[in-house]
Amino acid sequence: MENNEIKQAVLIKAAAAKEASLLLNSVTARQKNDMLAAMADALEKNAKEILFHNEIDVEAAKNAGLSPVLIDRLTLNQSRVDAMIRGVKDVAALPDPVGTLAEDLKSPVKDLDVKKIRVPLGVIMMIYEARPNVTVDAAALCLKAGNAVILKGGSEALNSNKFLSKIISEAGVKAGMPAGAVQLIDTSDRTAVSELLKLDKYVDLVIPRGSEELVNSIRKNSLIPVLSHGKGLCHTYADIDANLDMAVKIAIDAKCRRPAVCNAMEALLVHKDIAPQILPKLCELYTEAGVEIRGCKITSSLAKNVIPASEEDYNTEYHDLKISMKVVNSLEEAITHINKYGSHHSDAIITENKENADRFLAQVDSSAVFVNASTRLHDGSVFGLGCEIGISTQKLHARGAMGLKELTTTKYIVHGKGNVRE
Amino acid sequence: MENNEIKQAVLIKAAAAKEASLLLNSVTARQKNDMLAAMADALEKNAKEILFHNEIDVEAAKNAGLSPVLIDRLTLNQSRVDAMIRGVKDVAALPDPVGTLAEDLKSPVKDLDVKKIRVPLGVIMMIYEARPNVTVDAAALCLKAGNAVILKGGSEALNSNKFLSKIISEAGVKAGMPAGAVQLIDTSDRTAVSELLKLDKYVDLVIPRGSEELVNSIRKNSLIPVLSHGKGLCHTYADIDANLDMAVKIAIDAKCRRPAVCNAMEALLVHKDIAPQILPKLCELYTEAGVEIRGCKITSSLAKNVIPASEEDYNTEYHDLKISMKVVNSLEEAITHINKYGSHHSDAIITENKENADRFLAQVDSSAVFVNASTRLHDGSVFGLGCEIGISTQKLHARGAMGLKELTTTKYIVHGKGNVRE
Repeated sequence: MENNEIKQAVLIKAAAAKEASLLLNSVTARQKNDMLAAMADALEKNAKEILFHNEIDVEAAKNAGLSPVLIDRLTLNQSRVDAMIRGVKDVAALPDPVGTLAEDLKSPVKDLDVKKIRVPLGVIMMIYEARPNVTVDAAALCLKAGNAVILKGGSEALNSNKFLSKIISEAGVKAGMPAGAVQLIDTSDRTAVSELLKLDKYVDLVIPRGSEELVNSIRKNSLIPVLSHGKGLCHTYADIDANLDMAVKIAIDAKCRRPAVCNAMEALLVHKDIAPQILPKLCELYTEAGVEIRGCKITSSLAKNVIPASEEDYNTEYHDLKISMKVVNSLEEAITHINKYGSHHSDAIITENKENADRFLAQVDSSAVFVNASTRLHDGSVFGLGCEIGISTQKLHARGAMGLKELTTTKYIVHGKGNVRE
Repeated sequence: MENNEIKQAVLIKAAAAKEASLLLNSVTARQKNDMLAAMADALEKNAKEILFHNEIDVEAAKNAGLSPVLIDRLTLNQSRVDAMIRGVKDVAALPDPVGTLAEDLKSPVKDLDVKKIRVPLGVIMMIYEARPNVTVDAAALCLKAGNAVILKGGSEALNSNKFLSKIISEAGVKAGMPAGAVQLIDTSDRTAVSELLKLDKYVDLVIPRGSEELVNSIRKNSLIPVLSHGKGLCHTYADIDANLDMAVKIAIDAKCRRPAVCNAMEALLVHKDIAPQILPKLCELYTEAGVEIRGCKITSSLAKNVIPASEEDYNTEYHDLKISMKVVNSLEEAITHINKYGSHHSDAIITENKENADRFLAQVDSSAVFVNASTRLHDGSVFGLGCEIGISTQKLHARGAMGLKELTTTKYIVHGKGNVRE
């Protein structure tokens, strides 16, 4: 398509999404659940065709020489399709945030009844990379919160995403969903996204999921507010009063299980008084687990296989089986280090000392702060939100694990009896 | 100052504010109230000097030929200083939002206690125009919510602002406030603001108060999230089932009392079946009150002194004794008109019909929607927030009247007993 055609196509989609979102304002929870059930049904009935369309993407990715990791993320199979279907049903089962009371207000004005209630945000644009299941997840979550959604997946998954969005959108519409409530940007041309990011008249929120580069470029170029996942440079601090066995157990869990996820630990700080007791054994376990250790001088003097850590190491989110380590003189030094080098995502203290725990909780400026638990537990489901749209490291609107509520906004509803100001 | 000097000076202030904000994380409500009391005291003791410094600004403004309206906004007198002092005391008396429970969470994981609590945002930058009292108001509100603040007032008020910020900052520090918690950008050079807007590492939020141009230019140029007051193109719709006397009373209040404020009505929509009963009298009252009427053809046919309304009129926030009017065929037409032309600020329906009221409340996409009340009631104090930082027309973080809570963010606080993910 020519640039002008793409601009036109994108504008039409955005306007249709806005129109759909205004109709979704009056849709009941029951109606939305019926739409979601119809989507789950359609996925079930079309499983074979989904796999067929996905295979075209996978073949092309192989021919283009994409990495095995990327190809794995791109690939669907029956069990992954089943997981998508379960996902949609799980979303339908969640309580509807729309219409719930956000704040109970007492107006000092006689006969004026003021309520702040949750309402849909409007139109949400989701930008994501290879995984085709996000197409279905995101559509279900946005719809449940009463929003229209514009989906923009990765170019590698375009065939899969086209088919998935087509069947869920058609099924939804048959069950009463306004046309335009679920739409896909079906081109890989970059003009489409850069045009959409200008349409703040139609789109209320952009949620980018993917690499730091992707997110930063969207933040920079968007006129629409962005709700982004930042990086996760997470710390664990083993305090002077730590339970040593617990510290080792948590340090292993937080680093080794899934090093590539955002809530994995990247750096371990250890109080100097317990360093001699904990570091030799822990570093041995790390080395056995294949973890590369970058440590300060004291770490090196206490344990084997320690590579000297540079300033850059403390600033790095490895996303890998690597860890930076530092022995600190005090709780204060640990807090200062975390606030300076961390990404304000998830940080933990291991201590039996309540006063130290409270000081850490108050002074570490992160979206989630843990006492005697692994940062890996930062997750919407673990936190009781029922689902997770992502983890925000920004401070406005949503911070930390985000659930359905974060896909809504609020509205003041005021009933009077002819009240005027003066 | 040279550009480089300004950049350097701004960077130092921003870093100092960040440092102060980290210390403010552990300050109690009692300590903050002591700081506010000390500020109120200092204002009281220095009232004469405040007026002296303000007079320099007022003289300069007169010599520069500024409009009487602007000069009035700039001018302080004893009663305005008294109001500032009362304002600070009122803020001290408000409940502290910091540390309150934002969400009660039930983790499905055994022995994991998850709480979402309110914490300060960090560093807030306030950008505002002539009124010097905003310097004191904003500092008090930001401090009460545990934030450091960087103040940037209008150049006309620079002398007043310098003195006001100096005395409240010094008084606060004497009472235990971290240095750097209240700072003023004491230059009118534009480099200062454009540099600050890049410092997202240090500043968490920018709140611009002023003209649409000021706000838009900040939105466009800021790397820091912006919480802005948009314009207020507010509607009142007199429904087929309106109480006619009430409709007239509200239409007069919403338009005539203070036409220049953002929650004043700009447009009146009237159902065709009641137009003949209401418009002749209402338009007469408007004309008596000096209101210029821009109406549709039916309005013209029913009332005197009606200028034909253009498309542009329906898009205009007059901020003045002018009103656009339209006779509509249905509730649906009114809702569509409001969503199309309105600014999503405050809109009202006058009706005795509950079904119509509910449809209006659900479908009008505005920050506050009123039934049988004047849009002029959209106000933090009227809504029971105890104060008002402003009225947001954006959907993220805060929508509509904003209180102290909107100057905070949240943090997950998680207590475990050695919990790991797997």
